[in-house]
Amino acid sequence: MRIALAQINPDLAGFEKNKTKILDYIARAKEKKADLVIFPESCLFGYHPFDLLERESLVDQQMSCLKEIVKKIPAGITVLIGGFEKCKKKKGRPYYNAAFLCVKNKIVKTFYKELLPTGDVFDEARFIEKGQIKNNFFKIKDRQFFLTICEDIWAWEDSKGKSLYNENPIAKVPRKKVDLVINMSASPFYTKKLKLREYFVQKTAQYFRAPMAYVNMVGAQDEIIYDGQSFVLTPKGEKKLSCLAFAEDLNVFDLDTLQDWNATSRRKRETDTELLRQALVLGIQDFLKKNNLRKVHFGLSGGVDSALLACLAADAIGPQNVQLFALPTQFNQEESFVLAEKLAKNLGIPLKTISIQGMFDYIKTILDSEFSVQRFHLMHENLQSRLRGLILMAYSNLTGSLLLTTGNKSEYATGYATLYGDMCGGLAPLGDLTKKQVYELSKLYNAQTEIIPERILIRPPSAELRPGQKDQDSLPEYDKLDKAVVNIVERKAKLKNATEKWLAEVLMKTEFKRWQAAPILKVSEHSFGRGRRYPLSQSAKTI
Amino acid sequence: MRIALAQINPDLAGFEKNKTKILDYIARAKEKKADLVIFPESCLFGYHPFDLLERESLVDQQMSCLKEIVKKIPAGITVLIGGFEKCKKKKGRPYYNAAFLCVKNKIVKTFYKELLPTGDVFDEARFIEKGQIKNNFFKIKDRQFFLTICEDIWAWEDSKGKSLYNENPIAKVPRKKVDLVINMSASPFYTKKLKLREYFVQKTAQYFRAPMAYVNMVGAQDEIIYDGQSFVLTPKGEKKLSCLAFAEDLNVFDLDTLQDWNATSRRKRETDTELLRQALVLGIQDFLKKNNLRKVHFGLSGGVDSALLACLAADAIGPQNVQLFALPTQFNQEESFVLAEKLAKNLGIPLKTISIQGMFDYIKTILDSEFSVQRFHLMHENLQSRLRGLILMAYSNLTGSLLLTTGNKSEYATGYATLYGDMCGGLAPLGDLTKKQVYELSKLYNAQTEIIPERILIRPPSAELRPGQKDQDSLPEYDKLDKAVVNIVERKAKLKNATEKWLAEVLMKTEFKRWQAAPILKVSEHSFGRGRRYPLSQSAKTI
Repeated sequence: MRIALAQINPDLAGFEKNKTKILDYIARAKEKKADLVIFPESCLFGYHPFDLLERESLVDQQMSCLKEIVKKIPAGITVLIGGFEKCKKKKGRPYYNAAFLCVKNKIVKTFYKELLPTGDVFDEARFIEKGQIKNNFFKIKDRQFFLTICEDIWAWEDSKGKSLYNENPIAKVPRKKVDLVINMSASPFYTKKLKLREYFVQKTAQYFRAPMAYVNMVGAQDEIIYDGQSFVLTPKGEKKLSCLAFAEDLNVFDLDTLQDWNATSRRKRETDTELLRQALVLGIQDFLKKNNLRKVHFGLSGGVDSALLACLAADAIGPQNVQLFALPTQFNQEESFVLAEKLAKNLGIPLKTISIQGMFDYIKTILDSEFSVQRFHLMHENLQSRLRGLILMAYSNLTGSLLLTTGNKSEYATGYATLYGDMCGGLAPLGDLTKKQVYELSKLYNAQTEIIPERILIRPPSAELRPGQKDQDSLPEYDKLDKAVVNIVERKAKLKNATEKWLAEVLMKTEFKRWQAAPILKVSEHSFGRGRRYPLSQSAKTI
Repeated sequence: MRIALAQINPDLAGFEKNKTKILDYIARAKEKKADLVIFPESCLFGYHPFDLLERESLVDQQMSCLKEIVKKIPAGITVLIGGFEKCKKKKGRPYYNAAFLCVKNKIVKTFYKELLPTGDVFDEARFIEKGQIKNNFFKIKDRQFFLTICEDIWAWEDSKGKSLYNENPIAKVPRKKVDLVINMSASPFYTKKLKLREYFVQKTAQYFRAPMAYVNMVGAQDEIIYDGQSFVLTPKGEKKLSCLAFAEDLNVFDLDTLQDWNATSRRKRETDTELLRQALVLGIQDFLKKNNLRKVHFGLSGGVDSALLACLAADAIGPQNVQLFALPTQFNQEESFVLAEKLAKNLGIPLKTISIQGMFDYIKTILDSEFSVQRFHLMHENLQSRLRGLILMAYSNLTGSLLLTTGNKSEYATGYATLYGDMCGGLAPLGDLTKKQVYELSKLYNAQTEIIPERILIRPPSAELRPGQKDQDSLPEYDKLDKAVVNIVERKAKLKNATEKWLAEVLMKTEFKRWQAAPILKVSEHSFGRGRRYPLSQSAKTI
């Protein structure tokens, strides 16, 4: 008995395209003599659907495509496809998150997800009705399978006896003899997430005393990045197969031997930083592709954030699709420009220089006079940042190129960014990286040869919006700040020191900026963006 | 037996302030000889908490305040207070949405909400564990009460037999003899919402064959506006008492006679438009108050949107706290300025004029040359809008005044607004109004005397960003557009005509602008903002 894991990257609501891709992977699995091919959760609709599920017609379109797929399944292969199914009852939410077990010309059985994720970026309880998994058994050639969908296996207690869920639906399933447990997932990436998946998969495998195949989605959907890395695990936790990270993949294994049919496991061992790089590259690629965009641009300041973004953007879509801008004033050091120019040259990206000094002076004179401003003021700093935003958005309007924002998570946390200024842009690829991670990724790009001029990684960060300005004039040392951001925003832990107390207050005061931020590529456990929903009007001075 | 409905406006996470207010209302209820005083849902914590519930320390602070309240309750009165309670179990979500039944020095009983709203703006399933209401009976002086919290009574079938919920928790409650059914709510306003509440309350009252007291929160929380309008209903649907709309209120009634103890019902009959005006005024007031802001400003164009906003702002915080700006170019008609000036004068609001022609010309020359632009382009329109945003934000930076955005729902739906231009601002008070509603409200302000110059209500709308421009050059007639917005966005209904098909496509294309929009005061069934979560990267060309 041969099983194929089809780790695909679907388009959200791209039913025709997804259908074609699914049929292609079925054909390829069949070629490799697979008896069963397993696709990720909701692979036909795409995932996460958010409020697209308001529109019944989209689920109708998906079901038509499912019927067409079923007609074209070759004889002798069984297929597990994920999607949404309308509830027939008048009561409750309108859909199930379903897995369709299909053979040629027939949907043999349909399974419904029981645990609905409603934390962080997920909102399944809005439109999805709870199913029941206890009878999710099925047979192929006398082999017994048990099927789960994503969150269904995430109710096991952690080492402290805690669980997000009151009841574990797995624990209510009869422990019949099972040859393979299956989980179809759309599980987003963050560093160390794979370890967590392995924990829950092993717990489930142990319960059934059977090996388990975990098939994850790959691809990015706005803020969310699915990393693939599908795998097969024995009840003892031995990994028998690993699919690629951040790329589509098809692997066939033999259920009797649990040997990877492709002889070797295809997943290389990579560092966390390298995985992070791959995540961000895929995030940028897919955001562009899935929004029918081809080019990006942004300001290159001579600082580390925009330097890293230039590397990532060139990596994702090629330097020929990137346009960089230097938009200096008198406050920008000559060195910043020289470094920016060198970096652009190293990457082969065009750099266009437009001084904003003249327009800054022009508008400053008018505003200072109209508003009786005597001294250099925060307003003048923001004015520079907003003039840059205005020029970069003009370029968007003229060319259709996507403006990327360069802000990192530590800046966003402190509000050290100008709303409608450097926060302008359609995507914030670095918005979930601490400053430390920005440096780590930059060093990774310099591992072979010096792409980012070393000086950029050494000189003290500065917004260069007033004479002699340094980030550290307004912010705690990045080392401390980064740790505080991780502790408060990602781990939601108690406040431990003065920096964290400071940050907790600042977070509350600056929430209004993040409300209007561009989508942020999520690569941590908890990112700013739609998965973090803080109110503005509230009286907690700290948290 | 006398019952008090204490319809209060709490501050989210303003525990000390809420405690003082609750104690004040208890004292006033006691003065009026009430035996039981009922507060709204979560009145001590404030509502909706969103991700503030990440922070356990806030619930600890709330519980301390609850203990202090309980110590100070006078003898002889029972109090029902809403708040969050930590779950003691290690499994499941961390809190219950609770009602605390208290007397002097004692919490007598605690009740937990069973149905957790997870649609539109609500996200209770993120942090709240489901309770069970079937034993929610309690007695005072031999009178039997049954308690529910907000959504608990919203599972009854509608006239088509539909319900959002699979099971109705009320239908599982034993039908004992009950003297009064209670619902503690935080139910947001939209036009006609009261009718819906009355429907569900009457259904519940009928089930128990008992009168029902519905105590609603009042006040605004970012986008959400609670309207109060608490009431008492007989099982036959006869309204025995109505509290004020959009204001705090305390009413005592006699349980035996169901007579309003204050002799007359305090709720006046008002038109839908008048209620809408009150909602928006409260929304602006509370957003400012609860964010420690005092003043607002925005551009007055001579069009109807900014004219209405000027009326609402003056209404909400007084003309002395509003600053208007005229920021003309050569494309603005002289008449626009004359009308704006007249309106500002009528309202007693200062109007400051700063021509942006010079800076527009200055930057246009640079950009046209740098980017080889030959003809007048959309970029030039956006440039004007963004220069206005830049000036208005400079004023914010200098004075701490809040910039309001003037866009309405029909504009937002079509993306007929410039991102980082006229979309700049911290609050969008008109963002959930169709153009028709903008006119209706404007006429309401003119009902007594002409505040908004009549000509503003007659002349064709124009963004005045290029010569001779009219909204109707780019958009369908507002009459048709408004209906399409209501049908698609609010009712989520099937597409019926060419305008709706056009709008469905445009909605998909312009989602990226709304992702970065300011908070919108929600006054309809479904508004843009946090309650409408559409993805950007998706392939559905239409819906």
